[in-house]
Amino acid sequence: MTLGGAFATIAGPCAVETERQFLTTAEAVAASGARMLRGGVFKPRTSPYDFQGLGVKGLELLAKARTVTGLPVVTEVISEVDTEIVAEYADMLQVGSRSMFNWRLLESAARTGKPVLLKRSMGATVEEVRDAAAYLREQGAGGVVLCERGIRTFGTATRNTCDLAAVSLLQRMTGLPVIVDPSHSSGARDLVAPLSRAAVAIGADGLIVEVHPDPDRAWSDGAQSLSFQEFEELMRDIEPFVNIWTARRYRPLAKGKGAA
Amino acid sequence: MTLGGAFATIAGPCAVETERQFLTTAEAVAASGARMLRGGVFKPRTSPYDFQGLGVKGLELLAKARTVTGLPVVTEVISEVDTEIVAEYADMLQVGSRSMFNWRLLESAARTGKPVLLKRSMGATVEEVRDAAAYLREQGAGGVVLCERGIRTFGTATRNTCDLAAVSLLQRMTGLPVIVDPSHSSGARDLVAPLSRAAVAIGADGLIVEVHPDPDRAWSDGAQSLSFQEFEELMRDIEPFVNIWTARRYRPLAKGKGAA
Amino acid sequence: MTLGGAFATIAGPCAVETERQFLTTAEAVAASGARMLRGGVFKPRTSPYDFQGLGVKGLELLAKARTVTGLPVVTEVISEVDTEIVAEYADMLQVGSRSMFNWRLLESAARTGKPVLLKRSMGATVEEVRDAAAYLREQGAGGVVLCERGIRTFGTATRNTCDLAAVSLLQRMTGLPVIVDPSHSSGARDLVAPLSRAAVAIGADGLIVEVHPDPDRAWSDGAQSLSFQEFEELMRDIEPFVNIWTARRYRPLAKGKGAA
Amino acid sequence: MTLGGAFATIAGPCAVETERQFLTTAEAVAASGARMLRGGVFKPRTSPYDFQGLGVKGLELLAKARTVTGLPVVTEVISEVDTEIVAEYADMLQVGSRSMFNWRLLESAARTGKPVLLKRSMGATVEEVRDAAAYLREQGAGGVVLCERGIRTFGTATRNTCDLAAVSLLQRMTGLPVIVDPSHSSGARDLVAPLSRAAVAIGADGLIVEVHPDPDRAWSDGAQSLSFQEFEELMRDIEPFVNIWTARRYRPLAKGKGAA
Repeated sequence: MTLGGAFATIAGPCAVETERQFLTTAEAVAASGARMLRGGVFKPRTSPYDFQGLGVKGLELLAKARTVTGLPVVTEVISEVDTEIVAEYADMLQVGSRSMFNWRLLESAARTGKPVLLKRSMGATVEEVRDAAAYLREQGAGGVVLCERGIRTFGTATRNTCDLAAVSLLQRMTGLPVIVDPSHSSGARDLVAPLSRAAVAIGADGLIVEVHPDPDRAWSDGAQSLSFQEFEELMRDIEPFVNIWTARRYRPLAKGKGAA
Repeated sequence: MTLGGAFATIAGPCAVETERQFLTTAEAVAASGARMLRGGVFKPRTSPYDFQGLGVKGLELLAKARTVTGLPVVTEVISEVDTEIVAEYADMLQVGSRSMFNWRLLESAARTGKPVLLKRSMGATVEEVRDAAAYLREQGAGGVVLCERGIRTFGTATRNTCDLAAVSLLQRMTGLPVIVDPSHSSGARDLVAPLSRAAVAIGADGLIVEVHPDPDRAWSDGAQSLSFQEFEELMRDIEPFVNIWTARRYRPLAKGKGAA
Repeated sequence: MTLGGAFATIAGPCAVETERQFLTTAEAVAASGARMLRGGVFKPRTSPYDFQGLGVKGLELLAKARTVTGLPVVTEVISEVDTEIVAEYADMLQVGSRSMFNWRLLESAARTGKPVLLKRSMGATVEEVRDAAAYLREQGAGGVVLCERGIRTFGTATRNTCDLAAVSLLQRMTGLPVIVDPSHSSGARDLVAPLSRAAVAIGADGLIVEVHPDPDRAWSDGAQSLSFQEFEELMRDIEPFVNIWTARRYRPLAKGKGAA
Repeated sequence: MTLGGAFATIAGPCAVETERQFLTTAEAVAASGARMLRGGVFKPRTSPYDFQGLGVKGLELLAKARTVTGLPVVTEVISEVDTEIVAEYADMLQVGSRSMFNWRLLESAARTGKPVLLKRSMGATVEEVRDAAAYLREQGAGGVVLCERGIRTFGTATRNTCDLAAVSLLQRMTGLPVIVDPSHSSGARDLVAPLSRAAVAIGADGLIVEVHPDPDRAWSDGAQSLSFQEFEELMRDIEPFVNIWTARRYRPLAKGKGAA
């Protein structure tokens, strides 16, 4: 996701909760240097009893935030029934880790012609990610961006185990941009900055970070969300690493080779 | 899946390939004592380039096999768009391991009112299986049967690692029948019988086994499929264990507590 | 471990704590049909702050229990410095899962000429177990018995994940007896019987089970230890499965092919 | 391992093979900026049939290389019987990943009073690493340095999965220096530089890297060893990241808090 050739940080809340929550977050992360907004409106939670998202009302808030900030927005699709309507509002469709093996959803998302952000399943090998990415491209996706977000291992000290070597492998295997999700990888707010620095240094093309106006009151994923202040600090923390990244042009992707 | 209170073996090919292939398999497994037929008509393969299944034409073959053998049939649904049509033909809907976290599909399958066979994701904890099962029941499924089919571990000697302790845990946690898939667990024909015996002995409610007229020529999963002769031998191999199971009434489920 | 061609259950406490504790346990498990006694006297605990074992005093208690019950004893060696003295007392030396990759210990244990019980490391592949077993034989071990005791996976519902397919694989790969440790595999008392039945059914050559006079007061591993009454029930529970095992002669090992 | 407060790269071959091989490597890595030499003389190989190391003759070569380069040397101990002699030659004793749970070896290494480099077992949780480190300190080790070297997961694209978040966690949990082994983590030469950059960026205290005069002819681990030229390039590659590390003083360890 070169977005003009630069390292790209995508930021926003796990779930769009209210207009006020989402717009203040959008403005805050834009001010700190985010290049794209994220916010879930259909939430495929581990447990179906958790908050399920605002749906179409949430999509309208995404569009409003784009207008206000000028930043493109990405949001998750969890059903082939919804991809068309989501594509009307979003600039990029996210296929989440729990949907990576849902071929019908991949087809449907790709056929909208929008770029697709494909998150690695926590149980998927890099070869399986490569295959899913190839399918998205073949089905007409307007660009594909991959995302490492942690795999399931015996370790319990972090929510998942961030497999950073997979970033390099997937870049080489697919020629596509690969970003890192330090929030889901770790499940812990204070590991977001260290993992983000490591992701920039290994040559990832971007980050996707959870930010919330009041993380301790977030309806979901609060423990791993950054406050506005913490996101501002994150962006300053990674800045010198991003400068090296930019100078070295780690991923000088030709236009159209990956995402738009 | 008590099916009259007895231990139940479900058998059939990974994919319905042709009328001849499926009907001869159905008759062979029925003759050997299978209590339900299986056969995939929508195949959510790891790679989208593999054979994708016969679709509705396959459903008609399932129905035909049911008429010929008198056995109920189970087949996988991979899209919420297809659940209605599948429910018209099948006696039980399978949600495969790669779809376990697809809540929209769970909802859609449950709402047909048919019993649902839910296979554990190779990356799911037992608590996540329990939650998905609870959701199916709440959404109206006409019974739920769980299936242990192996999890992803560092081991490479088998396709997956069959977690038989999970059978006991899930039975206790959910009160639902739990069956075992020795074919996908191991990915190896010669491990199907040993794992099947172990599954009966641990108290599983049934098995789901891949059988093919000519495993070496199967369009998918040939390495783990049994020939008719091997399936006949499997049924003889497990017979004394099933006799103990029956005498001990390992799972004397009350009517309606689990599947129909 | 054919011990006369029969299925063999090894039983005893995790650690030898006191004379009274060990001898009452030895007599109880012998009365219930155990064919070998176990009891740790050098304990390589996960944390060095836990109880470290009775050492040589414990070895004397092992010998006393053998005299009283007539059963052979197996105990763990954790240091090459101790193998000689342990071999003077024990009939079989156990190399524990945390020592499987300790080649010097393997050498030292093998060179005593005693049979060695090698437990799979919770992080080892079956190929690595095979290699360690081959080394033991080459270095002069008077027989080798392998033991599946669970591997580390993402699952947290059980202490480890018992990989029963590995029993069949290791038997075939090595020609050696392979037993199962349902206590460490599960870490849970109420899973010991189901896993034991499954182990017999898959064709394991024996079991190694933790038994304690008062599990809730055990100095280690209490949560997975059986009381005398529970061990008696276990032996009755597995009896019909052992009868099938015996009738089928699952592992008619020639004398000297595996352990004595 | 502050070694004067600076980021420290330890380099050398997997195994000391010959005087010429080791001394040329030592001089090359010293010239490129390595701060410590490594080289195995007792090799606890996965398979006992592989090369077992030069033993005491190798220790003499380590000492010679120290004289020639002025750099301290670290080498692995695999037996409590050898720790004294190794401590006479080496500046730091390495306890390898396969020995992490060998308490007797930990005791013996610690009691020499030398600093100990403790590598995480590929099957160990971070809490277990913390406990082993505490034991080393309690037993008198003259400093402890921890090393993340990859854990076993279902992934097969790399030899192990480098768990970089564990670096931050272990630093916080123990207050000790934590270094990263990009060579064993990945098992692949071309992933060493990306993982090294990520390790510096996350705040690791150093690296331990395999270097060989002719990697394709190495007696062990050739696929992951760097040539002299590649190591020189690695050091240039990480330089700007090390400069940030130094400016930010990621780990301004007080004297004596961690290793000497």
